[in-house]
Amino acid sequence: MTDGEMHETGVLGQIEFWFDFSSPYSYLSVMRIGELAQHAGVKIVWRPFLLGPIFQTFGMSTSPFLLQKTKGKYMWRDMARQCQKYRLGWTRPSEFPRMGLLPSRVATLEAGAPWIGAFCRKVMERSFVENRAINEADSVAEILDDLDLDASPLLDLAHSDFAKNLLRQRTEEAGNRGIFGAPTFFVEEEMFWGNDRLDDALQLAVSAGTRETSKIIS
Amino acid sequence: MTDGEMHETGVLGQIEFWFDFSSPYSYLSVMRIGELAQHAGVKIVWRPFLLGPIFQTFGMSTSPFLLQKTKGKYMWRDMARQCQKYRLGWTRPSEFPRMGLLPSRVATLEAGAPWIGAFCRKVMERSFVENRAINEADSVAEILDDLDLDASPLLDLAHSDFAKNLLRQRTEEAGNRGIFGAPTFFVEEEMFWGNDRLDDALQLAVSAGTRETSKIIS
Repeated sequence: MTDGEMHETGVLGQIEFWFDFSSPYSYLSVMRIGELAQHAGVKIVWRPFLLGPIFQTFGMSTSPFLLQKTKGKYMWRDMARQCQKYRLGWTRPSEFPRMGLLPSRVATLEAGAPWIGAFCRKVMERSFVENRAINEADSVAEILDDLDLDASPLLDLAHSDFAKNLLRQRTEEAGNRGIFGAPTFFVEEEMFWGNDRLDDALQLAVSAGTRETSKIIS
Repeated sequence: MTDGEMHETGVLGQIEFWFDFSSPYSYLSVMRIGELAQHAGVKIVWRPFLLGPIFQTFGMSTSPFLLQKTKGKYMWRDMARQCQKYRLGWTRPSEFPRMGLLPSRVATLEAGAPWIGAFCRKVMERSFVENRAINEADSVAEILDDLDLDASPLLDLAHSDFAKNLLRQRTEEAGNRGIFGAPTFFVEEEMFWGNDRLDDALQLAVSAGTRETSKIIS
């Protein structure tokens, strides 16, 4: 049985990756998850969502990093160190949280596309390395062009009610499943919060995949 | 130059370890730090403090794990997994946060004692493995007895105004230095929050120690 066949019959380990384009620690996981998951033989289910409405359900008007100043100050220092550790580019965004509604809609619509990982990495790098806006149609078009994709129909779809509703539903689902921050990973019903838990989540996904494979073989 | 001499001349890497006996993630670090620091050749400066007054300065009446129910629910699951990962005993405490004022005073007074690590581990295990109270004189006396120490004079001192003020000052210092949770580590002025950052903090402490040693040798 090849990896491809395992994938198609659904017995490859799988990780659901919930993230928000404005979340610094989501940036770390977006940049890291592709290579790590590939190495582990785990399939990624991309689940962009919006943290803002989640925070609101907890009575928070904005990011906890803004509401709690000392925690926010620490986070920026921690992010600089984490990027150095993982050898990732880093510029503290001049705007925080930086709005990423439009790329979130594109990523929600195209979560199953073969280019989804590359798209998400480019959006994140534009914000957290180049310190540039990501919410304008021009910004997203530039990224799609870079990926040799036809930006125009994708952007039209991203502006549709269908796309708006889909992202809204995803965000509601996030809340219903107990998500309170980003990134969050699910392996089956097991939830992991934070980039610091990515390795643990992937390890569980590998075991879960192996368990399923044994069932079919036996 | 032996390790002992390095220690005495202050060039051994050093880590300040700020923790609260009621904090679950502090339990993980209390259990792990002794062996890890010894292996790395890093000196631990034990800094017990009280998280409660810190949370109050942020307008929180109690632990964020109680104020934010989904986060609290996740934390208990995460703790069970983390203890399994680090092969530590674990029982979810029936009382949370469990008051640990008296052992905090003893640990603050005796932070430099050779038995401080063993004492802190026993307090933590009593709470997070045996699910027993830690704040009564009897509880602390039992732990001190176990360590072949004379409990009576230590407890008398722990009940003194001197001890109360010292712990109060430490907690104020924690707030002034930007601590907003526990465990928190300092290596020189670099702050690290959370058990997940213990390894990074120790690594920096090793570099800092090496740097100081080079200065003296050169």
